[in-house]
Amino acid sequence: MAGVRDPLPITELQKTLPNAYAKLSKIAEKLEKHYKDMQDIEFTIEKGNLYLLQTRVGKRTAKAAVKMAVDMVNEKLITKEEAIMRIDPSEINQLLHPVFKRGAEKNFKLIARGLGASPGAAVGKIVFDPARAVELSLKNEKIILVRKETSPDDIHGMEAATGILTAKGGATSHAAVVARHRGKPCVVGAKSVSNKEMVIDEIRKRLVVDGNVLEEGTFISINGETGEVYLGEIPTESPAITNEFGTFMKWCDSIRRLGVRTNADTPEDAEKARKFGAEGIGLCRTEHMFFQEGRIEIMQKMIMASNTSEREKYLAQLLPFQKEDFYEILRIMDGLPVTIRLLDPPLHEFLPKREELIREITELKHTGGDSKIVKEKEEILNRVEELYEFNPMLGLRGCRLGIVYPEITRMQVRAIFEAACQLYIDGANPVPEIMVPLIGSEEEMKHQRFLIEEVAKEVFREKKCKVKFKIGTMIEIPRAALAADKIAKYAEFFSFGTNDLTQMTYGYSRDDAGKFIQVYMTTSTKCRYCGTELTKELKCPHCGREYEEKPENILKIDPFQTIDSNGVAELMRIAVEKGRSTRKDLKIGICGEHGGDPESIEICEKLGLDYVSCSPFRVPIARVSAARAVVKKKLKKVEFDK
Amino acid sequence: MAGVRDPLPITELQKTLPNAYAKLSKIAEKLEKHYKDMQDIEFTIEKGNLYLLQTRVGKRTAKAAVKMAVDMVNEKLITKEEAIMRIDPSEINQLLHPVFKRGAEKNFKLIARGLGASPGAAVGKIVFDPARAVELSLKNEKIILVRKETSPDDIHGMEAATGILTAKGGATSHAAVVARHRGKPCVVGAKSVSNKEMVIDEIRKRLVVDGNVLEEGTFISINGETGEVYLGEIPTESPAITNEFGTFMKWCDSIRRLGVRTNADTPEDAEKARKFGAEGIGLCRTEHMFFQEGRIEIMQKMIMASNTSEREKYLAQLLPFQKEDFYEILRIMDGLPVTIRLLDPPLHEFLPKREELIREITELKHTGGDSKIVKEKEEILNRVEELYEFNPMLGLRGCRLGIVYPEITRMQVRAIFEAACQLYIDGANPVPEIMVPLIGSEEEMKHQRFLIEEVAKEVFREKKCKVKFKIGTMIEIPRAALAADKIAKYAEFFSFGTNDLTQMTYGYSRDDAGKFIQVYMTTSTKCRYCGTELTKELKCPHCGREYEEKPENILKIDPFQTIDSNGVAELMRIAVEKGRSTRKDLKIGICGEHGGDPESIEICEKLGLDYVSCSPFRVPIARVSAARAVVKKKLKKVEFDK
Repeated sequence: MAGVRDPLPITELQKTLPNAYAKLSKIAEKLEKHYKDMQDIEFTIEKGNLYLLQTRVGKRTAKAAVKMAVDMVNEKLITKEEAIMRIDPSEINQLLHPVFKRGAEKNFKLIARGLGASPGAAVGKIVFDPARAVELSLKNEKIILVRKETSPDDIHGMEAATGILTAKGGATSHAAVVARHRGKPCVVGAKSVSNKEMVIDEIRKRLVVDGNVLEEGTFISINGETGEVYLGEIPTESPAITNEFGTFMKWCDSIRRLGVRTNADTPEDAEKARKFGAEGIGLCRTEHMFFQEGRIEIMQKMIMASNTSEREKYLAQLLPFQKEDFYEILRIMDGLPVTIRLLDPPLHEFLPKREELIREITELKHTGGDSKIVKEKEEILNRVEELYEFNPMLGLRGCRLGIVYPEITRMQVRAIFEAACQLYIDGANPVPEIMVPLIGSEEEMKHQRFLIEEVAKEVFREKKCKVKFKIGTMIEIPRAALAADKIAKYAEFFSFGTNDLTQMTYGYSRDDAGKFIQVYMTTSTKCRYCGTELTKELKCPHCGREYEEKPENILKIDPFQTIDSNGVAELMRIAVEKGRSTRKDLKIGICGEHGGDPESIEICEKLGLDYVSCSPFRVPIARVSAARAVVKKKLKKVEFDK
Repeated sequence: MAGVRDPLPITELQKTLPNAYAKLSKIAEKLEKHYKDMQDIEFTIEKGNLYLLQTRVGKRTAKAAVKMAVDMVNEKLITKEEAIMRIDPSEINQLLHPVFKRGAEKNFKLIARGLGASPGAAVGKIVFDPARAVELSLKNEKIILVRKETSPDDIHGMEAATGILTAKGGATSHAAVVARHRGKPCVVGAKSVSNKEMVIDEIRKRLVVDGNVLEEGTFISINGETGEVYLGEIPTESPAITNEFGTFMKWCDSIRRLGVRTNADTPEDAEKARKFGAEGIGLCRTEHMFFQEGRIEIMQKMIMASNTSEREKYLAQLLPFQKEDFYEILRIMDGLPVTIRLLDPPLHEFLPKREELIREITELKHTGGDSKIVKEKEEILNRVEELYEFNPMLGLRGCRLGIVYPEITRMQVRAIFEAACQLYIDGANPVPEIMVPLIGSEEEMKHQRFLIEEVAKEVFREKKCKVKFKIGTMIEIPRAALAADKIAKYAEFFSFGTNDLTQMTYGYSRDDAGKFIQVYMTTSTKCRYCGTELTKELKCPHCGREYEEKPENILKIDPFQTIDSNGVAELMRIAVEKGRSTRKDLKIGICGEHGGDPESIEICEKLGLDYVSCSPFRVPIARVSAARAVVKKKLKKVEFDK
């Protein structure tokens, strides 16, 4: 019965008309059970008779919902568990991000629609170049960075922007992941309202959508929740954290079984996540650390090196930077576990792009450019060609790098242990967990474990101190799940990298699959024979076929948003079972994007994982979801016991 | 005791010195059991005493081995089963391909070494351009086509060449697969003798290896079995098929349980394979058919089309070609099943390469090229960019194409049924099996099945005739194996595409993994800490570490050559079990490259598959391997029964 338009009269009603109140309570209860959601009930009492005018699923803001739920517990109308079940975790987003003022978007022109990849509303001038975004943001301009797709080269521009809009990519494309991580509103894979390509001309600095040309500097507003893109500046309102919200979150924490960690690569993220209630870092990526100015140049020299000792020379120059990064993060997370993942991406991600080099060289040659520069660029191109991969996703990356070039693993691990020892000496309590990415076999894990342990011994001897640490792996390759019993011999923890695991289990590249996933999720309205949009009568206007029932969608959920319960979850189940058969106390978590998705968290609870890890901004959602998962399991158990 | 240097004296010995003969037989038997191979025994009999001089594993040519085995069965010394176990299937290669004259290579300079990807010896002039290869081969020159890597554009050059050499790629790279298919000797991923890159300068038409510059036209000799590349013309000898070989193969056929089909895309391949004893086609790829002149232009227009009806227009132009292809292949395989796989590769494979377009356009612009041509090329580039994928392996291909563009599936299926009906009317017995590639879910299979059945009905109505057919799918995505019970609802057969299944299960791109697979297979000789080559005493000359035992190789087998028994085979087991739980008479085969690999065939026998399918030239090897697998299973059973 919560959610009636104005909650106040209810308590008055209880006092003044207890019979009507009792009747109404019963009706509300029945309706809520039936609709599995709160109800708005319009009623009137005339001459002692209760008249229902209409009922509908209750619409209220997240803030109101939390307040009502907490009030009702305080009034002993519902239990804490019931309160938790009344808040949809996705509503928590509304409490943490700015949103458009209610209904304000109605007055603006909708120009495009994509996938809402990172929640919140953002308003700003469009800019097509990361450097320009940085430049304007320094002048306090609000910027929306608009790109075909983003790459690690764009990070500084993404950080400078208020929001991000891309024409390509899906729920776990680079733009989406980074945006969620930074809590920036983001829309990816956007198309025009008439479902045509949104053309982003990065050279002429303009965006063409349904024939409208938007030049750099044009204001747009994006909704990272719904994926909508509007022309103009829509007024927004900031989130307001209430006392009730704090109470509600405490209840969630007392009920949940799953730990909640965060994915954080920087001290700032770590700090933010700790404030949001993270109980450790589940994934600290180390590759982003190499993209900073002053580092990327050394990294590139390391990659261009032609032998081990040359590579070692440049790695030695990178070591102090890495050590510094780790020291800070371990310090902020003092006493809490920090899972540091060794270098994961293929090396060519750190070099200039192949096509750009080709274009530059051809241009230089035809315009009589400096032959020395041409030669330099050609050398880089040669190395880029050498490193070029048809499918970098499935190429030389992750632990494969650390096995082919053990000196890379050695440098990173040394930096971790040197930082941890220093911190220990400085009086803190660092808890590093070293995570080897992309393990597919027992032998790889054994190889890397040996290396890590050797370096640990060395550093501990040098620093005359010892810190506790764990060595573990991502489970992100199907084979790793299938061979989990063997891998667990050398791993003290597993962390499911469900992004990659989904990519390989489904054979979907997350950067490319946007194209057909959108089609797959809308096939229920299309004729199976010719692909034409069906009429309401389920008849095809083109080939005349009639369907008895609506065809099913090929995909019911986007497997990059919610764990695929048939395939990916089955591999996870196998991995948990096999892994724990070898090592009873194997710690198992998840650090893919799914770690912040409510339905996926439910699957993690069922599978008996120890913790989930997600972007800082998703930590509160994960805490609520983990609590709901426990309550749901209980409810199902009750049903089952009956 | 077979394999003594000169088998003749044995029978004499039996007559003249029966005691010595009996003694020798026992010794030989023990040795053979111990070494699990035939033994060369040198002995002398002096004054009635038998003296063993030395024994070693018997070395003999494949021809001699088959002759001996058949002779010994005829002399009732061994059983047919024992004869089959004496011939290593890989030796069969020697009987089907030319080889270097014995020991001849000793007099030539070894310049490079790679992966022996397709057996046989080839000698010819090096050529770097497929068109040039065709040109010279028309003048009866023997050509070795040398490329960084090959692509479908190179097919005509590969066909014109006697052998193929590439600097990149692994066992299932494009070059390797096509070469095996055509029975052309091929070496891929070749490096210099000192393990340095082999630089192929396709523009300046030269090959640089360890500082030696080989210009176009230089003679080299390659051994597609060992992966060795020599400078100069090594004399070769042709294979000689003997009567004993025919007898031996008949015995194999009488013993094996697995069917043996072939992978064949052309009438020529189909014909060849039938001669080699193929019992049907397990994989007829349809994409190669679109690369021929006169077809590729239409295909490209179809891809450039901006709407369905335009696409349909060009597909209608392709239909007669496809129909013709299918008619011929079905005719040649009259009465035998022909599994036709619908279009599999991503569409951009049919368009010019992105980098080439960029280079051309930049060049045209700077040299004042025709603006009309520039515009045309830019339009193509735009479409190429639209279709561009970061990981095409995991992108819009396979059944995803047929779902996004049902008109493509419709055209192909119509061509199959029109051809089959025509052939039926012409008095033959076509047995088409339509195979949908890259299925990952029940819903995809259901979608494509509906489409195929609708077209079948249409064509049968039009042609007033009906042919029997089956609809099935590849199992090549891990998820398909995990959801096999659901997929089998709509599939009458499964065919394991173990190339792709291995790629996704391991997370190895077959075109890129060569780089680290080579390292992975030689880690046993390297220091785990620093990667330096260990001394014979298992000591690292660089960091001084001493190893108690030789480190293991990360990879013991190349999973693209032999099925990975822990991961990939486990998924296959799950698929067989789940698939047959839904459909008891589900026909299950394998059509990946593993279908021709002896050890993999043993796994297929264990898993209870119905047939294997492999390149035409591998059909005899598969027949022998399938027979050996049965005998081995029996032997193990005997051991077990004890």
